[in-house]
Amino acid sequence: MKKYVALLAVSLMAIVVMGLLATDINAKEGERVAMTNPGLNLEHPSVNSEWSKKFPRQYGSWKKTSESIELEDMLKKWPALAIVWAGYPFSKDYNAPRGHYYAVVDNTNTLRVAAPEINPADPDSPLPAACWTCKSPDVVRLMEDKGDLNYYTGKWNKWGTEVTSPIGCYDCHDKTDASLKMGRKYVNDGLKAAKLPEFKDSTHQVKRDLVCAQCHSEYYFHPTPNGEKTAMAVVFPWKNGLEPEGMLKYYDDPENFPNKQPFADFKNSISGVPIIKAQHPDYELHTTGIHGKKGVSCADCHMPYTQEGATKFSDHQIQSPLKTMDRSCMTCHREDQDKLKAILKEKYDRKETLFKFAVNNLATAHLEMQKARELGATDAELASAVKLIRNGQWRWDYAVASHGGFYHAPDETLFILSKANQDAQAARVELRAVLAKKGAADFQAPDFSTKEKAQAISFAATKWPSYEKLAADKKKFKDEVVPKWLETAKANGLLDPERPKDDRGAWFGHSK
Amino acid sequence: MKKYVALLAVSLMAIVVMGLLATDINAKEGERVAMTNPGLNLEHPSVNSEWSKKFPRQYGSWKKTSESIELEDMLKKWPALAIVWAGYPFSKDYNAPRGHYYAVVDNTNTLRVAAPEINPADPDSPLPAACWTCKSPDVVRLMEDKGDLNYYTGKWNKWGTEVTSPIGCYDCHDKTDASLKMGRKYVNDGLKAAKLPEFKDSTHQVKRDLVCAQCHSEYYFHPTPNGEKTAMAVVFPWKNGLEPEGMLKYYDDPENFPNKQPFADFKNSISGVPIIKAQHPDYELHTTGIHGKKGVSCADCHMPYTQEGATKFSDHQIQSPLKTMDRSCMTCHREDQDKLKAILKEKYDRKETLFKFAVNNLATAHLEMQKARELGATDAELASAVKLIRNGQWRWDYAVASHGGFYHAPDETLFILSKANQDAQAARVELRAVLAKKGAADFQAPDFSTKEKAQAISFAATKWPSYEKLAADKKKFKDEVVPKWLETAKANGLLDPERPKDDRGAWFGHSK
Repeated sequence: MKKYVALLAVSLMAIVVMGLLATDINAKEGERVAMTNPGLNLEHPSVNSEWSKKFPRQYGSWKKTSESIELEDMLKKWPALAIVWAGYPFSKDYNAPRGHYYAVVDNTNTLRVAAPEINPADPDSPLPAACWTCKSPDVVRLMEDKGDLNYYTGKWNKWGTEVTSPIGCYDCHDKTDASLKMGRKYVNDGLKAAKLPEFKDSTHQVKRDLVCAQCHSEYYFHPTPNGEKTAMAVVFPWKNGLEPEGMLKYYDDPENFPNKQPFADFKNSISGVPIIKAQHPDYELHTTGIHGKKGVSCADCHMPYTQEGATKFSDHQIQSPLKTMDRSCMTCHREDQDKLKAILKEKYDRKETLFKFAVNNLATAHLEMQKARELGATDAELASAVKLIRNGQWRWDYAVASHGGFYHAPDETLFILSKANQDAQAARVELRAVLAKKGAADFQAPDFSTKEKAQAISFAATKWPSYEKLAADKKKFKDEVVPKWLETAKANGLLDPERPKDDRGAWFGHSK
Repeated sequence: MKKYVALLAVSLMAIVVMGLLATDINAKEGERVAMTNPGLNLEHPSVNSEWSKKFPRQYGSWKKTSESIELEDMLKKWPALAIVWAGYPFSKDYNAPRGHYYAVVDNTNTLRVAAPEINPADPDSPLPAACWTCKSPDVVRLMEDKGDLNYYTGKWNKWGTEVTSPIGCYDCHDKTDASLKMGRKYVNDGLKAAKLPEFKDSTHQVKRDLVCAQCHSEYYFHPTPNGEKTAMAVVFPWKNGLEPEGMLKYYDDPENFPNKQPFADFKNSISGVPIIKAQHPDYELHTTGIHGKKGVSCADCHMPYTQEGATKFSDHQIQSPLKTMDRSCMTCHREDQDKLKAILKEKYDRKETLFKFAVNNLATAHLEMQKARELGATDAELASAVKLIRNGQWRWDYAVASHGGFYHAPDETLFILSKANQDAQAARVELRAVLAKKGAADFQAPDFSTKEKAQAISFAATKWPSYEKLAADKKKFKDEVVPKWLETAKANGLLDPERPKDDRGAWFGHSK
């Protein structure tokens, strides 16, 4: 009899376990079905948390981009930046980027977009609406709702009440079936100009690059008529290829621009040299490196497949693969992690050394040219040095604005930096002769060895108010303007209830 | 009955085939035993053909190094070399190297060793005996027979009757059992100085690098007392590590040299700058590249395992792995050969561009310094530029004297070249100011765009006879002196009957 009781107990336990297992299998199957055929029905796809019900793991990992919290003040690290960018907003304030989670906060906080709607004489940001383009899925929504040209027309503060969600789901995914999608058409325009397959004609693996390329690419603002106004539209300068020399050729060709002049993002206020500002050509440099050439996509390393229990998914905590080496590197490399890290450290150090050579020589060349002009040097005397500084600064910036370039394409990055320094030094050799002829053979460029010293030189040349004045205006902007923007957004249902706590009004955002 | 006949015929055929097979197996086994336990009994181990009986396949493939016959006149390709090496024999004549088979011929033919025993006033080569060190297994024999210091004492022509066999078997193999062996002790001295394991304590894989490192390394001639004479002994400057910065530190430290002065191979006769000539640091650069770091040895790629019938052996036709990609690269890389070649082409092109920047700027700096001295610039005024040119030229030469560096360690090579160019340009920036102060703000360095123009400048500064005079003396040397050397060698049993047909008397050896 006891035997039968024991057998019954075991049987019942087995039934319970099997039942639990079946429930778990059903739950997993439900999640799998949701992933492959989610039947999304989102009221506000630009609100990231709305995607969390169907994609709890992807959303949860995305939210962890908030763990990348550190800001590095690049002007403090490289004071020469304030000289080479004199007259351009980057000379006010420039931090190394952190997690996607902070994209909108950091864009609002930076001195670059200034303090619009604070001074009656200066109601608008000095920057165009397009400066939001890479910061938010709200931009995808605005482009859809208003049309690209209307989105691009006007100043940055025009969309203060509309752009509140940081880079998230709707930037890369379709709102009905969550498939990969590029909400920004200018990438396709760039691909067409470069005679490359468009997004829709690309393989899934290439699409996993292209969604990133929406923002991690070189671009400029192309003045484009929109009725009586002018839209500053994002354009990729890829017509002559995705390499820096092809892009330089593009920017130098007057035929590519409405004013029939070579393109310049700004004129350096110290030297008067027309400068092209390079903007994180991560995608382009990646394609020239060995990982890119072997078909490794951005997501393979930055969004490695990960497992929670029996569920496998793509990790949306986009970050340095050095933090996920077991899943990002070790799937291909049979090598000790520390050994790989040491090799990367060498690559980083080499880049840093060449960065320093080039940026210091460029900054010195700008200052030597300023002195030469003061002493009466003519445009004709300086023409060759102007061209050398323009080219050198483009190359230097191209190589370093892409923060991961030293890793994505190590030798290409060193090569571009080396050419940049050659240009800068060649300009200096010429400028020393000009200075000598103007009686200043022994001229020493003023000290720009700290952020404060460099900004003092740069701000004076630009005739900008002091850093303290800019910061005080900014504080006022954040105390008075931003809270109103957020209230309006909330009333319109556009404010994510799970938005960054460290939100746009709360925090200054630079580390001075 | 017919059945039996047929059966018998088949049986007989089978017996014959098996017999042939057994013979073949026996022959192969004999070859295998010979390879692993050769019981060599060589009368003259420095005569390469003596090894052919026991190692017919290795010898046969070695002999094919004669197929690498092309000489490239580097002074024609890069005329600036004649400027940066002004006063040093390399400015007379410098060809890119070809197969090992031609090592002795090419060393005899070059104008660098000049035309000893032709002019009564100048009976000796301007170069020391040590200039044979990497050219021949006869050097191993001489070091054994005479002792290192006696081998190193005297001038190059001292060993004209002794050194006849080109780089071959006895350079890397033991004469009794053919195991890997380094006949040149200075490598062990270098390893000890660098606190690295000696040859005997190294793994077999490392030994396969070190036998190559005997010659494919940076070295200099250290003046060493030998009785009343001075031996110019080959020394590896590895005390502060195997990187160019450590070696520069070594060369700059007066304590390392008998005259208590920083080391210089020569003083540039145009500028007066004391120069360190870098000498093919292939081994050192290889260790800093990814193949070296992953433990790939020189032999893995340059001497890949190969098969003839059923016999597997190491291919001794040492050459570019691009010619043996199927055996050298494809054993590890799963990639299309043409794609790998295209990647290498990019690496090569990057190096060539930076080579050009650096060498042209160095040459110009030498010429600008010459002008500054003519105009009365003092040593004190030029001290900083002198140091910059010395450092820059060392770095440039280090990166390019290793012909395969662009491949062995692509980013390290670009990095060193980039630093070299930074030095050269920094020197030029200073020199332009000095020139301006001496009234020569517009000085343009003379044209050195062809070998002829560059050598004219260089030879004049060095007070050398014309190129034509050097070449005429050389011809006389080869017609009158070399045949006698070879006769003596033959009488002593040292002349390989299979020596290069294109032998030392027969051919001029440079492509002007």
